[in-house]
Amino acid sequence: MKVEILCTGDEILSGKTTNTNYSHIARKLAEVGLDVVWGTTVGDDRASLLAAFRQAGARADAVIVNGGLGPTVDDLSQDVAAEACGVPLVLSEHWLQRMTESYARRGRVMPANNKKQAMLPDGAELIDNPIGTACGFAVTIGKARFLFTPGVPREMRRMLDEQVIPRLLKLGGITGVTRLKRFHSFGIGESRADELLAGIPGLAIDAEIKLGFQAHFPELETKLAARGASEAALAAKLAPVEAEVRRRLGNFVVAEDEQSLEGVVLEKLKAGGHTLAVGETFTSGAIASRIAPLAGAEGVFRKGVIASDVTAEALRRDSGTSHALVVLMQLDEGPERPDFGATITVQIADATGEVERTARLVGGRDWVRIGAAEMGLDCLRRHLCGMPVDERIDFERR
Amino acid sequence: MKVEILCTGDEILSGKTTNTNYSHIARKLAEVGLDVVWGTTVGDDRASLLAAFRQAGARADAVIVNGGLGPTVDDLSQDVAAEACGVPLVLSEHWLQRMTESYARRGRVMPANNKKQAMLPDGAELIDNPIGTACGFAVTIGKARFLFTPGVPREMRRMLDEQVIPRLLKLGGITGVTRLKRFHSFGIGESRADELLAGIPGLAIDAEIKLGFQAHFPELETKLAARGASEAALAAKLAPVEAEVRRRLGNFVVAEDEQSLEGVVLEKLKAGGHTLAVGETFTSGAIASRIAPLAGAEGVFRKGVIASDVTAEALRRDSGTSHALVVLMQLDEGPERPDFGATITVQIADATGEVERTARLVGGRDWVRIGAAEMGLDCLRRHLCGMPVDERIDFERR
Repeated sequence: MKVEILCTGDEILSGKTTNTNYSHIARKLAEVGLDVVWGTTVGDDRASLLAAFRQAGARADAVIVNGGLGPTVDDLSQDVAAEACGVPLVLSEHWLQRMTESYARRGRVMPANNKKQAMLPDGAELIDNPIGTACGFAVTIGKARFLFTPGVPREMRRMLDEQVIPRLLKLGGITGVTRLKRFHSFGIGESRADELLAGIPGLAIDAEIKLGFQAHFPELETKLAARGASEAALAAKLAPVEAEVRRRLGNFVVAEDEQSLEGVVLEKLKAGGHTLAVGETFTSGAIASRIAPLAGAEGVFRKGVIASDVTAEALRRDSGTSHALVVLMQLDEGPERPDFGATITVQIADATGEVERTARLVGGRDWVRIGAAEMGLDCLRRHLCGMPVDERIDFERR
Repeated sequence: MKVEILCTGDEILSGKTTNTNYSHIARKLAEVGLDVVWGTTVGDDRASLLAAFRQAGARADAVIVNGGLGPTVDDLSQDVAAEACGVPLVLSEHWLQRMTESYARRGRVMPANNKKQAMLPDGAELIDNPIGTACGFAVTIGKARFLFTPGVPREMRRMLDEQVIPRLLKLGGITGVTRLKRFHSFGIGESRADELLAGIPGLAIDAEIKLGFQAHFPELETKLAARGASEAALAAKLAPVEAEVRRRLGNFVVAEDEQSLEGVVLEKLKAGGHTLAVGETFTSGAIASRIAPLAGAEGVFRKGVIASDVTAEALRRDSGTSHALVVLMQLDEGPERPDFGATITVQIADATGEVERTARLVGGRDWVRIGAAEMGLDCLRRHLCGMPVDERIDFERR
C-alpha cells in the first residue's frame, strides 16, 4: 500500500516551524510496517492545496493530511477537500454539539468562528479528536483515501495512534496486532549493533519481526517492530527474540521502552535505600539536571556541585550521602574542531570504597560534554547493577 | 519567483531523521525575500525522483534539491537529473582532481567509489563545495533551474549562503546586498512584540525592510531582513530602524545577532572583574550549564551548587566570589499538566547587598524550568546593566 503524507501551513512551508509532525507520523507508520513513499508540504494556499490533493490522489492509496483544520480563514483543509471531492461542506451537528459541550464544561461560550470546524465535506467520515476542537475526517479523492488530522502535535499524535493507523491497517488488509519493543543502549554505534544483531529477525517463527535502529547521540535505540495474529501469539513470538537482543547487547542496554538511563539509576538508588551527591566540572550541571528533576528524586538526590576541585569520597562525606558520583574532564587545548576531545574521569564512592574509570572522547565540545554526562550516569548504573564500569565503548579512543 | 525545495533520501522520507535541512533552507530564503511555495520529500527511488523533478520543473522557476549526492549506489541525484535532462553523465575532471587533492592533503588515497561524485549531467554548471567531496551542480529541467546541494548539513549550509542564494537572487533579477539584523528578547510574547513594533518597517526610506519573528522559548527573536543597493546604502537605511527597535523593545533585549544571554552576562562580569557562584534547586544545573562551559568562563564562574537550602549571600561568602546568583523554585503539587507552575525566587548578592525578584510561571514542568533558568540569567544581566530586575514579563501570572 502506497502511503503519502501531506503537510499544510505557512509556518511549516516557510521553515519557521521545523516539521516534526512529518517525522513523527512517518516513524509511527514504519513501526507498524507501513512505508511512506512521498511527502508534500504546501502553504495555506487554495490552489496549491487543491493541486497537491489531486496529485496525491492520483499516486497513492492513502494520504495523511496534517494541518489546516483550525477555526481561522487561513485554515483551508475542509474547504479544499470538499472542492476536490466535488461536494458541498455540510454542518456536522454531532461535532458542533461536542465542541459546544466542551466549552460549556470549562464554563466558556464557544466563539462563533469555531463553527467552521464542524463543517465537513458532504459524506465525509468523521475521525474523533478526543482532546481538541478540530475533528479529523476521511474522504476519497482520486484513488486514495485521505485522512485529515490537526496540526497541534498532541492532538495529531493521539489521533494517529487511536484512529488513523487502525484505519490504514484495515485499508491495507493488514490484520492482527503490532508491538514495538525498544532497547536503549550506550556505548555501541549503529554499525556494530547491526553486526551484533545479525540474523535476529530470522529467529522469529515467521517474517513478521523487523529490526531497526535510531541513533540519538549518545544513545542508540534498537527497535523490534512485530506483528502477530493476537496479543498472545505476538508475545510468544517476541519473547525469545527480545531475550536474544538483550543477551547480545549485554551490559550496553541502559533502559528499555519508556525507561531512561537516569530513571533506571534513580530506581536502583531508591530500591537500595541510597542517597546521591553529584560533582561535575565541564558537564556543568548536565548530570544533575538529568536526575534531580525526576519525580521521586527529592528523597535521593541531595546535592550537586559544579567545581574543578571536587572528589567523590570528599563529596560523599561532606554531603552525608551513601553514594557520590563525580565526573571530571581534562579538555583539549585550542579552538573547537571535529577532533576536539577530552579525558573523562568518572569516580563513584560508596560505603565500600571508590571505583574510577578513565576514557578519552572526541567529537567537539558539545559532543564530548553530552558523552561525558552519559558515561557518568552509565558508570553509576553499572556499579549499582554489579557490572564492570570499564567496558570499552565505541566512542572512546585509546 | 516561485522557489521549491525537494529533499531526497530514505532517512528523511521515513522520518528517521527530522528534516531540519528543509526548515533551514526555507528560513534562509525568506530572510533574503524569497518565499518557498512547495516542498517535496522522496526517497532514494529512481521513479519517484524522476517524477518529482518533472513535476517541480513544470511548476517552479527554481528548485533547490537537497541530498542524494553521496558516493554510494543509493545516491541517485546526478543520475536521475541527467535522465530528466535527456543527457549522459560526464566526468568532471576538475572535481575529480579537487577530490584527489583533498584526500592527498590528508595523506589518504581516495576510495574508487568517490569517482561517482564527479559524474555530472552533461552541460551542468558546477557549484563548489569547499568542505566536502559532494559537489553541487545546476541544470534546467522543464522551466525551472535546479540547484543540487548535499545532504550533510554543514556542507549544505555553507553552499546555500555562498553559492545557491546568490544564484537565486540573480535568477530572480534581485540586485543589491542583504543583511539580517537579529534581536533576542526575553519577557515579551510574539503578539506583544508585534504590537510594540507596529509601523517599524515603514520607517525605512523604502519598502525593503521586512520585520519577522521566531519564537524559541523562552526567547523571542525579532528579525529585520533588509536589502539595499550597496553595503553603505543598506547600513544607512538600517541604522535608524535598528535604533527604534532597540528603543521600543527596551530592557527586554537580552542580546543581538550572534550573542547569547549567557554570553552577554559573562562579558559584563569579565568587564567588571567579577567572579560568580550559582545556586539552583529545581533548575538542577541548567543555569550553570549555560554559563560555565563558555570560552573564557573559567576565570569567572567559580562554583555551582544544586541544593534546596542555598541563599545568595551565604553562597557568595562561602565561594569567595564577588557575585552570587541563586534561583529557587516552589513547585506546584500534583501531576504534570499544562497549567502546572512554580513560584520562582531569584536572589543576586554582591558587595553592595542583595536584590530579589519573585514571579509565578506556568506551562508544565519543563517549560517552567527553562523559563526559570532564563529569568535568573536575565535578572543578573539587568542587575549588571543597572536596569530594574522586576519589570513584569508576559509569561508571568500575578
